[in-house]
Amino acid sequence: MIQSLIHSKTDALHSMQELLDWIQRRNQEVEVLVEQIPFAEMKGWYADAEGCLRHESGRFFSIEGIHVRADVGVIQEWEQPIINQPEIGYLGILTKEFDGVLYFLMQAKIEPGNVNCVQISPTLQATKSNYTQQHKGRKPLYLEYFLNVEPHQVLLDQLQSEQGARFLRKRNRNIIIKVDKDVPVYEDFVWMTLAQIKELMHHDNMVNMDTRTVLAGLDFGQYEAELSSYKQMSSFGQAMVVSARCRNGRWTMNEHLSWLTQLKASAELNVQYVPIKDIQGEWQVNEYEISRTDKKFFRVIGTRVKISNREVTSWCQPLVQPMQQGICAFIIKKIESVYHFLVHAKMECGNLDVYELAPTVQCLTGNVLDVPKEQWPAYVEYVMNAKQEQILYDALQSEEGGRFYHEQNRNMIVEVGDEFPINIPTDYHWMTLGQIHEFMRFNNYINIQARSLIAAIKYV
Amino acid sequence: MIQSLIHSKTDALHSMQELLDWIQRRNQEVEVLVEQIPFAEMKGWYADAEGCLRHESGRFFSIEGIHVRADVGVIQEWEQPIINQPEIGYLGILTKEFDGVLYFLMQAKIEPGNVNCVQISPTLQATKSNYTQQHKGRKPLYLEYFLNVEPHQVLLDQLQSEQGARFLRKRNRNIIIKVDKDVPVYEDFVWMTLAQIKELMHHDNMVNMDTRTVLAGLDFGQYEAELSSYKQMSSFGQAMVVSARCRNGRWTMNEHLSWLTQLKASAELNVQYVPIKDIQGEWQVNEYEISRTDKKFFRVIGTRVKISNREVTSWCQPLVQPMQQGICAFIIKKIESVYHFLVHAKMECGNLDVYELAPTVQCLTGNVLDVPKEQWPAYVEYVMNAKQEQILYDALQSEEGGRFYHEQNRNMIVEVGDEFPINIPTDYHWMTLGQIHEFMRFNNYINIQARSLIAAIKYV
Repeated sequence: MIQSLIHSKTDALHSMQELLDWIQRRNQEVEVLVEQIPFAEMKGWYADAEGCLRHESGRFFSIEGIHVRADVGVIQEWEQPIINQPEIGYLGILTKEFDGVLYFLMQAKIEPGNVNCVQISPTLQATKSNYTQQHKGRKPLYLEYFLNVEPHQVLLDQLQSEQGARFLRKRNRNIIIKVDKDVPVYEDFVWMTLAQIKELMHHDNMVNMDTRTVLAGLDFGQYEAELSSYKQMSSFGQAMVVSARCRNGRWTMNEHLSWLTQLKASAELNVQYVPIKDIQGEWQVNEYEISRTDKKFFRVIGTRVKISNREVTSWCQPLVQPMQQGICAFIIKKIESVYHFLVHAKMECGNLDVYELAPTVQCLTGNVLDVPKEQWPAYVEYVMNAKQEQILYDALQSEEGGRFYHEQNRNMIVEVGDEFPINIPTDYHWMTLGQIHEFMRFNNYINIQARSLIAAIKYV
Repeated sequence: MIQSLIHSKTDALHSMQELLDWIQRRNQEVEVLVEQIPFAEMKGWYADAEGCLRHESGRFFSIEGIHVRADVGVIQEWEQPIINQPEIGYLGILTKEFDGVLYFLMQAKIEPGNVNCVQISPTLQATKSNYTQQHKGRKPLYLEYFLNVEPHQVLLDQLQSEQGARFLRKRNRNIIIKVDKDVPVYEDFVWMTLAQIKELMHHDNMVNMDTRTVLAGLDFGQYEAELSSYKQMSSFGQAMVVSARCRNGRWTMNEHLSWLTQLKASAELNVQYVPIKDIQGEWQVNEYEISRTDKKFFRVIGTRVKISNREVTSWCQPLVQPMQQGICAFIIKKIESVYHFLVHAKMECGNLDVYELAPTVQCLTGNVLDVPKEQWPAYVEYVMNAKQEQILYDALQSEEGGRFYHEQNRNMIVEVGDEFPINIPTDYHWMTLGQIHEFMRFNNYINIQARSLIAAIKYV
């Protein structure tokens, strides 16, 4: 079905330089203004009697409070604000073959929270409120291709989770479709090869989270045709294809499934709604923000946004602003000559199913680490002290700018050798890339931070 | 790992007649008394200020109310009582090889709701409250084998859902382990081959739901060694092994996953707690029962139970009593010479993840069908009018007697030929047995009614 995904970036429809220039031009041409305003001045939004921020339509999303009781981790009971967005939106990429090479129709999109204005986004990025036109804007471009898709056009179609610490059980439909007929290319859209998009992921904050989560699902181990491109790959790319084709590594899928069953069966995670106005802990609410007195974690702010090229050019909305940077890192290691990823079963309060599989390291940095190193989360110190030759990937990547204000996390892939301790904590397992992909096909197994890192793996 | 699962029932440790005699003897020797009492007289239980029935320990389960809004089905908004049991319990079967044949240590167990006293149950059937000894009874037998299991002893270890119309997101840990050392066989326990247990499933109400759901996970397509037994199988058994080994049938796993993604993404299912005392609709509460004025669906009653051979010999508890019988049926058909099962994506209010895959037919009968046949659920009429030669399986099977009082449903497998309509509703898909097993490995895909039918498939 796919002729060639892995394609040298030099002879594509557009060169890398042309793409970078195009992104820069879009940055200059689109006008953006984001200003923080009091919650009460957010048109279309209101605080209900319990202090929760809601949209007048009853749709989009709301900012609510939750009380959490869990039986793992250092802190086992707390309250926090959370984004509640029960609707499942589209993150859709339209692809088409030109001269035997698959191209992805990417969008230069600005979201209000983006740290750097334009980021490369999927063809279609639409909440149900968007595409059912609750906000009465113009219809999202290319929507009809996705609404009318035929089964044989679907390359990938998965429900995937978002950040479990910020969203209450939020999911999106991650979908890639392939069309044969001519496709108009509107302003802000451009055809890219997968190799080009992955190259852009090695720049800071250039490819948005939505693109990364969708592309993470593409499983190179599954495409026989790709093996014809095998010789074009880097030796690392070749090794990754071997790992992706390995459905049973040193440990079998059944061993991983039993491990997850054991963890989920013994865990308790209880999440209850609480009114924002009653929220306990360090949290405080004023007319401008919901924040913590210790300045940790994040705060919720109100914003007024103007972006000249969007379906609706001006609107207000709450955004979540992190108070710390974070780090997401996979440690990988060749075990019996196949790359294995050190996966962490992580409980987060917004998870639909208690645990999801996270990267080896996923934590905040900054003052969170102002404790003795013995109390740091596992492997943080190891990753932060990795030698240059161990670091296979290192870039700052943004969280979704439609909900998060200027949030970026350091994304790393770090290779370790035989010196790495064999004994790992019980909530860690080594998996091949093929096993991670197998879990990814079934929803709510691989978390968004892990998917972001998987997407960044370059094959050429 | 497994030498021979499929074993002729005649030369087992115990003959079928010995097993049937043993069950009958257990029925005579164990004393059982279940009497309906007012809720207020249930020792250890109380109705809270909102009318919900709770245990004084804060554990076990509670009877609460829910308000449901859904966007599929004839009735899209309703209220009902539901069983809330957030703890995940063990349904565990211990196995051991004798002379190259795998035997399952089964228990003759009486649950208060059982229609016929003793039923064949897993080795270990314990809620977390049981096995952490919240109710201060004696420790469940064989518990230590499961608590101390080594990964290599695990044949199957899955989280599986219970009835989505009655339980709020309840799951159990379904686990089969294989031990090598000698195992004491206590009173009420006996070694059986899988063929014998499956034979007992062709009797009415002889094998309990917990046994059925655990055994459903055994995937014959996965055991190479079984092929040596292939010639001992019936021609139907051979055809089922072919279907079980078929991971891609006429439709691929990716097509099924995309179909499920589409259904889950477009559906809305909103479930909110409501106090029992405020429950709307036909529901009414008095000192003896929570029931409907139209006598439909089910009622909740209070009971006092005495069973002579249990960890605790006397206790009180609420039970759910159905007001109608039901029918669960799979339609199967050879497509391109491989058996495919007609699976229904069914939304039920207690589902963790909106939809689970159900049998072709899963509905109440009785006065629910007192409407014109055009309004009957899909395929009910077809199944009820099936000719004798189409019916491959037909038995009454009980729901779990620990929660349900005298509940039994007709379980059927019906084969259809080319006369069967090709066009099926959009919420139905044809799957091979191998594909159903693939979904079963990942939790919350195959519902308990479907699993019960899969378990009943006989190979010899």
